[in-house]
Amino acid sequence: MKPLNIAILGCGTVGGGVAKILTEQKDLLSKRAGREINLKYIAELNPPAAINRFGLDKKYFIGGGVEVSREDAGKNIQKVLTDPDVDVVVETMGGTSNFVHDTCFGVVHNGKNLVTANKALLAERGVDIFQEAENQNVKIGYEAAVCGAIPIIKGIKESFTGDIINEVCGIFNGTSNYILTQMQQKGLDFDSALKLAQQNGYAEADPTLDINGGDASHKLILLIKLAFGIDVSMEQLSRIGIQNITKNDIDFASEINASIKLICMAKREGNQIFATVRPMAVKNDNILSSVNFAVNAVKLEAEYSKTHFFIGKGAGSSETAMSIVSDIVFIARHGLSDTYTEKNSFSLGDTNKIEFPYLVSFKTKNLPGTTGLITTAIGNQQINIETVSHNRFSGETADFSIETASCAIEQIEKAINEIKSLNNDLLLAEPKVLPILF
Amino acid sequence: MKPLNIAILGCGTVGGGVAKILTEQKDLLSKRAGREINLKYIAELNPPAAINRFGLDKKYFIGGGVEVSREDAGKNIQKVLTDPDVDVVVETMGGTSNFVHDTCFGVVHNGKNLVTANKALLAERGVDIFQEAENQNVKIGYEAAVCGAIPIIKGIKESFTGDIINEVCGIFNGTSNYILTQMQQKGLDFDSALKLAQQNGYAEADPTLDINGGDASHKLILLIKLAFGIDVSMEQLSRIGIQNITKNDIDFASEINASIKLICMAKREGNQIFATVRPMAVKNDNILSSVNFAVNAVKLEAEYSKTHFFIGKGAGSSETAMSIVSDIVFIARHGLSDTYTEKNSFSLGDTNKIEFPYLVSFKTKNLPGTTGLITTAIGNQQINIETVSHNRFSGETADFSIETASCAIEQIEKAINEIKSLNNDLLLAEPKVLPILF
Repeated sequence: MKPLNIAILGCGTVGGGVAKILTEQKDLLSKRAGREINLKYIAELNPPAAINRFGLDKKYFIGGGVEVSREDAGKNIQKVLTDPDVDVVVETMGGTSNFVHDTCFGVVHNGKNLVTANKALLAERGVDIFQEAENQNVKIGYEAAVCGAIPIIKGIKESFTGDIINEVCGIFNGTSNYILTQMQQKGLDFDSALKLAQQNGYAEADPTLDINGGDASHKLILLIKLAFGIDVSMEQLSRIGIQNITKNDIDFASEINASIKLICMAKREGNQIFATVRPMAVKNDNILSSVNFAVNAVKLEAEYSKTHFFIGKGAGSSETAMSIVSDIVFIARHGLSDTYTEKNSFSLGDTNKIEFPYLVSFKTKNLPGTTGLITTAIGNQQINIETVSHNRFSGETADFSIETASCAIEQIEKAINEIKSLNNDLLLAEPKVLPILF
Repeated sequence: MKPLNIAILGCGTVGGGVAKILTEQKDLLSKRAGREINLKYIAELNPPAAINRFGLDKKYFIGGGVEVSREDAGKNIQKVLTDPDVDVVVETMGGTSNFVHDTCFGVVHNGKNLVTANKALLAERGVDIFQEAENQNVKIGYEAAVCGAIPIIKGIKESFTGDIINEVCGIFNGTSNYILTQMQQKGLDFDSALKLAQQNGYAEADPTLDINGGDASHKLILLIKLAFGIDVSMEQLSRIGIQNITKNDIDFASEINASIKLICMAKREGNQIFATVRPMAVKNDNILSSVNFAVNAVKLEAEYSKTHFFIGKGAGSSETAMSIVSDIVFIARHGLSDTYTEKNSFSLGDTNKIEFPYLVSFKTKNLPGTTGLITTAIGNQQINIETVSHNRFSGETADFSIETASCAIEQIEKAINEIKSLNNDLLLAEPKVLPILF
């Protein structure tokens, strides 16, 4: 059988890791694939840096391993896209620019298989790329795009074909999980924990997408498409980041045997998909609460096989690269075989309609009668109260939290409005409302 | 494309679950497979019971749904094995008899794909069946044989092809994990916890294979073959069950923030595989310690992608059946594509050479100087001591445990011998030695 020829576009952290595994393990990979896996080209603006960092031979680099201009780089990529010998293009440039979008579209349009870790591109601008791949009968390998090394894409695609997935849930962003873990274990406030994450290489200089739930949302959008067969846009997805989580929130969660995690969740009820990304207080009996530091976890609920957890590294050069290489071997083995894409007419439901138990935290004036006033207002909305926390007095203010039974967020909002109407000065801040996950 | 025709041999808990999913979800499965998935035959001694239990149409049963003699059942199976229209045979009779072995061998020998949940057969008598499948270029789907619904077989086969697995570890037996969890959470002794497991349907009337580590060993043998490419027999595998775990052991483990779990472990060091099945004290920071009740978990350590956990239901009718159905869909999709089988010349190493930290529990006469004598003997073997437990006095006897730093079991044994030689009457029982897993 003819070799499977690979081209890598972009030789940074991930692309370089891929090139390294493809060259170091060429014999093993070829044996496993049943045919030669051949790295043919690397297109990269700055080959000397990549050669130095990953110990790669300059022969792989288009242009012979010297720096190339942006214009020449564009031409090199066109060369790859039109080379009939190239079977698989690995896109590891990153970003969601027109250039990257058009390159990826061009890969599949030209009848080549695409493998990428670019979750932002696929989630925000991927609909036409996926569609074109289907039209051209080529594959998109994106295992690396969703939770790095966790094999959840092929898991759902190949191992749960006998099942019906009812819920996808988990911790999809390692940076925010690292920050929350440090806040919990070391008692740090958010800013100190973020700084620590940056110092230790777990957060970028600009950590926006990690902290505001954007990166996690990209992954959730891709899993919703895969598991439920519908396209959801970033704008449609209900999303709250971790930027407002305080040490107090962490402590109140601890008090009810829970840890705060940035949770991605999508569940099907009838023909509706309810999806959200937001911090939740995860009870310690739930394995997700034990997933600490820069680790990702995916929980599946399936009709026949019930509850599953997949836990592993969500990022890292060799971890992400491994997922890409496994996608390449899968294409080598099964390239011509049929793959079904789930497509359904489910609609996206209103997240506010999902009922949760809630952890509601209050900062109030330190006045007698406050607990009574607040718990009465909650009870007036037919919400049962599970526990009331210890009061944290601090001079003239008091902090305490209430764990409710399952209810609609609307009921909580009405209760808060009633509290405000009874005593307009009592609340010193808007109450913090976190869903509780059992 | 022609339909994929399925025959099920044995319509009990698992086979009936498979028939149910294949008939209930025929359209969805066929869509996912890219061709019709057609249940053609069920061979079963007692069809009326299966029809009643799973709501199946009698048309599927060879013989029209009436009870058949053992002799006729044998003939029916021969009919299936020689029917050129049958593509996949699902063996869900169970057991390791010659009849079942020869049937499974016959399936692959006749060029049909075999799907089975029969871990005992494949682990104890599977070598020639796997070899014949390779000779005939057909597939054996055995996802359901290893940890039920956890997709670890296709995980390793298809999702870690870009990696090198260095260690497989985990909780592979739900019954023993259920018993240990009840002992820990409810303070039960072993016998009461076993009885509870039997009452709640988590243990058979004869629980031997679950409790002595035999069932877990079957799964470990299959994972060693898959991940490391060597055949290991039951006799070669170092194995200790949970039958001697006491409430005291559980308490001593709790005191060092650990839970006792029946751990299966196989790791590669150079060209040697070290494998064992035995109870270990798993530290609470390790996610395996949070895996409770009848749940299974597999931990992988891989060269590039590092640590992974897969957690899910290890047994159950629909859970195990789902894995079988997914194997069928995989064969439908990828039946003709190449699959590589890992084969290596690694040898099985001496388990006693793996170093562990240990939890060593002593039952002694309640005499002053005992702690000094014992800790001195341990120190004399160059073993560092991490912690000494609180002493549990009970009249004339004392129970206490010692957590050591990492050492060889040989060193522990020498220390125990030294204790015995210094005071032959001091130890009232052979010390219990449990490896500690971080």
